[in-house]
Amino acid sequence: MFDQAPQAGATAGQATAPRRPRIVIVGAGFGGLAAAKALSGADAEVTLVDRRNYHLFQPLLYQVATAGLSPAQIATPIRAVVADAANVRVLMGRVGGVDTARRVVRLEERELPYDYLVLATGARHSYFGRDEWEQFAPGLKKIDDATEIRRRILTAFEHAETEDDPDKRRRLLNFVVIGGGPTGVEMAGAIAELARRALARDFRTIDPRQARIVLVEAGPRVLAAFPEKLSAWAGRALTKLGVEVRLGKPVTTCDAEGVVVGDDRIPAATIIWAAGVAASPAAKWVSSEADRAGRLKVLPDLSVPGHPEIFAIGDTALACDGDGKPYPGLAPVAKQQGEYLARLLRARLASKKPPGPFRYRDSGTMATIGRGAAIAKFSDRFQLTGFIAWALWGLVHIFFLIGFRNRFTVLADWMWSYVTFQSGARLITGKNSE
Amino acid sequence: MFDQAPQAGATAGQATAPRRPRIVIVGAGFGGLAAAKALSGADAEVTLVDRRNYHLFQPLLYQVATAGLSPAQIATPIRAVVADAANVRVLMGRVGGVDTARRVVRLEERELPYDYLVLATGARHSYFGRDEWEQFAPGLKKIDDATEIRRRILTAFEHAETEDDPDKRRRLLNFVVIGGGPTGVEMAGAIAELARRALARDFRTIDPRQARIVLVEAGPRVLAAFPEKLSAWAGRALTKLGVEVRLGKPVTTCDAEGVVVGDDRIPAATIIWAAGVAASPAAKWVSSEADRAGRLKVLPDLSVPGHPEIFAIGDTALACDGDGKPYPGLAPVAKQQGEYLARLLRARLASKKPPGPFRYRDSGTMATIGRGAAIAKFSDRFQLTGFIAWALWGLVHIFFLIGFRNRFTVLADWMWSYVTFQSGARLITGKNSE
Repeated sequence: MFDQAPQAGATAGQATAPRRPRIVIVGAGFGGLAAAKALSGADAEVTLVDRRNYHLFQPLLYQVATAGLSPAQIATPIRAVVADAANVRVLMGRVGGVDTARRVVRLEERELPYDYLVLATGARHSYFGRDEWEQFAPGLKKIDDATEIRRRILTAFEHAETEDDPDKRRRLLNFVVIGGGPTGVEMAGAIAELARRALARDFRTIDPRQARIVLVEAGPRVLAAFPEKLSAWAGRALTKLGVEVRLGKPVTTCDAEGVVVGDDRIPAATIIWAAGVAASPAAKWVSSEADRAGRLKVLPDLSVPGHPEIFAIGDTALACDGDGKPYPGLAPVAKQQGEYLARLLRARLASKKPPGPFRYRDSGTMATIGRGAAIAKFSDRFQLTGFIAWALWGLVHIFFLIGFRNRFTVLADWMWSYVTFQSGARLITGKNSE
Repeated sequence: MFDQAPQAGATAGQATAPRRPRIVIVGAGFGGLAAAKALSGADAEVTLVDRRNYHLFQPLLYQVATAGLSPAQIATPIRAVVADAANVRVLMGRVGGVDTARRVVRLEERELPYDYLVLATGARHSYFGRDEWEQFAPGLKKIDDATEIRRRILTAFEHAETEDDPDKRRRLLNFVVIGGGPTGVEMAGAIAELARRALARDFRTIDPRQARIVLVEAGPRVLAAFPEKLSAWAGRALTKLGVEVRLGKPVTTCDAEGVVVGDDRIPAATIIWAAGVAASPAAKWVSSEADRAGRLKVLPDLSVPGHPEIFAIGDTALACDGDGKPYPGLAPVAKQQGEYLARLLRARLASKKPPGPFRYRDSGTMATIGRGAAIAKFSDRFQLTGFIAWALWGLVHIFFLIGFRNRFTVLADWMWSYVTFQSGARLITGKNSE
């Protein structure tokens, strides 16, 4: 332990000699945070760098965007999570690059030397070269994205209430979600429930239940990562919720008026992008090979080729299983990689035999559509749909939320919403709110 | 009831004849919302206009600014509050002025005709002609103010952690609150508790407990609206919490480096303005007489002189008691005025005898300093300090919060914080967070 009693003016680990190895972890998402926690008490100085001061539980971010939860319920201060780990230091800062020769991470106003570097910087949305679409169709990766989308959704209803022109009113009540993956399905389902239930009685001129929610997926089915049978069930569940599911045709235009899908123009004031992600620019920092989505190709021990001291995990990495099949961009993969890396580094620090190659233990995947509707796949033979899958989805997400307080308040809010059909965080804040 | 079943395309009240009187209420704060609720079912079309979509429980806003509560916990969607009042319509919009001759309220893109107009637009902070101070010392009136102040406070600690220059670090750990009224006292106390308790173990380089919190009050004592004995008790409680209370000298300079109080320069990265408020520009809209703080002078029935159809309540109004003493700018005053106005308007609509002049029933005032410390004055003889006053303060605030859900989650969060000394919403969001 290098800092029993924190003291103003003392610099971490300055006093002790010989110098302990320095591990720098960039990014406090699922992977980076798991690595830092698992390195608590290791014989190394760990620095966890993130441009934000909180860890975000991204799987529930869509509930912030659709006014179900508050940002603080799905975010935990990083410092609080590792407060007990005396050898772990947290730094809020933006990484601009890495000097692999001098082994330093470049922050805005300082450099951070490392002996081992873990890149866990996650992914951002990608518009496949159509970056001009972003202003019309914001994506959902950060808390500020979520409150912006919430602002747009709620403002659309407000403006519709005061709009006299029927065409303009119709456009305001059209919501288009682009991308039929888990985020797109969750967003479309949640907007439908907001309109049909939580807002149903709130307006006098418009009927929010007449809102049209369109989910556009270029591929042949939604939730394509799941077996066909589960996808089909999810599609029917969406339709039942009142979501119009459009498959097989991509969005070809996205502008201030709406979108064009195939030959159809759908006028819409609110468009949400859930179609693609790309890794953050970590691959460029270390000038190493990446796939088209920007993910760093890593060796079986998650190290970057030619740099046994640099690792990439989570959405930043293209890691493959024994058959050469890439692991999916899921929270459990990132977490297990972070924990694996901590074991590997501890072994290296102790000059012991490192563990074998990283292997992901898949304990199942789930996706939710809406109230009482979810799908879950645990194996080829054990699959679930409907209420039980939904209850399980809820339990698992509560369990993996970080912090007892968050777990408790999210559970309380969900139960409240379930009973009352109301949603709790219907605030229009930020831009234009004053 | 003019709109039994809301229907897209139908305009409120269009069908029925003869036309019912139109009451427009501008502002959904304590006064405006109380008036609208009390007019539910009255034989009039009520329109409640606010530029926001939520009612804000301002007395707890300082807890959002100091990371104790989330915005959604102290804000309730206005539509949800009056959803059951079929004759009350909610409009989100910004009022630009009033044409008293034509009896219309001017919104950005439309006009709103009225037969009766209630101005309940509240107050904003005033820098007494030093508007250039606002950028350095933000005030606390809106949710976006609160999240901005939270961002500044938390960011100051983060920057101090990475700052090597001891002078700069000291400046980052200095917090100055200007104004010793309830908001200033609450803010100073809450920052002290955040630094000394919630953040105490989170940093490695700095010790947040060494943060210096200075409360500057130009007058001779804090909480000057309370009896001298209670003020003195509050001052001692602040000192015990670690707040440096500076009385009797105003701030003469406020800039990017800090403040100057008398001859003393206090370098500070975070400055909070809690010194003055001014009424919103409602007095200008109706070109009627106002006091120096911009409050509309109103008659004993809260109507504007010369305009028996226009009323002003809450912080917008300068209303006086039987002795000509102005009522204070408190939530209960605004609420009672809103309810009084509803009685008066109902009587006028029914051509019955209107109630006598408005009289405020004072059931006591309270102010909190911090954990276990508050003061309360119920009468000249019945006054409380300490833990009991604090518990009572909490109970009263929970009781007056709107919405069962908010009451429940705020209570749960407070109990959690009380037991763990932690605070729940330590997020840095918005500007510079990406």
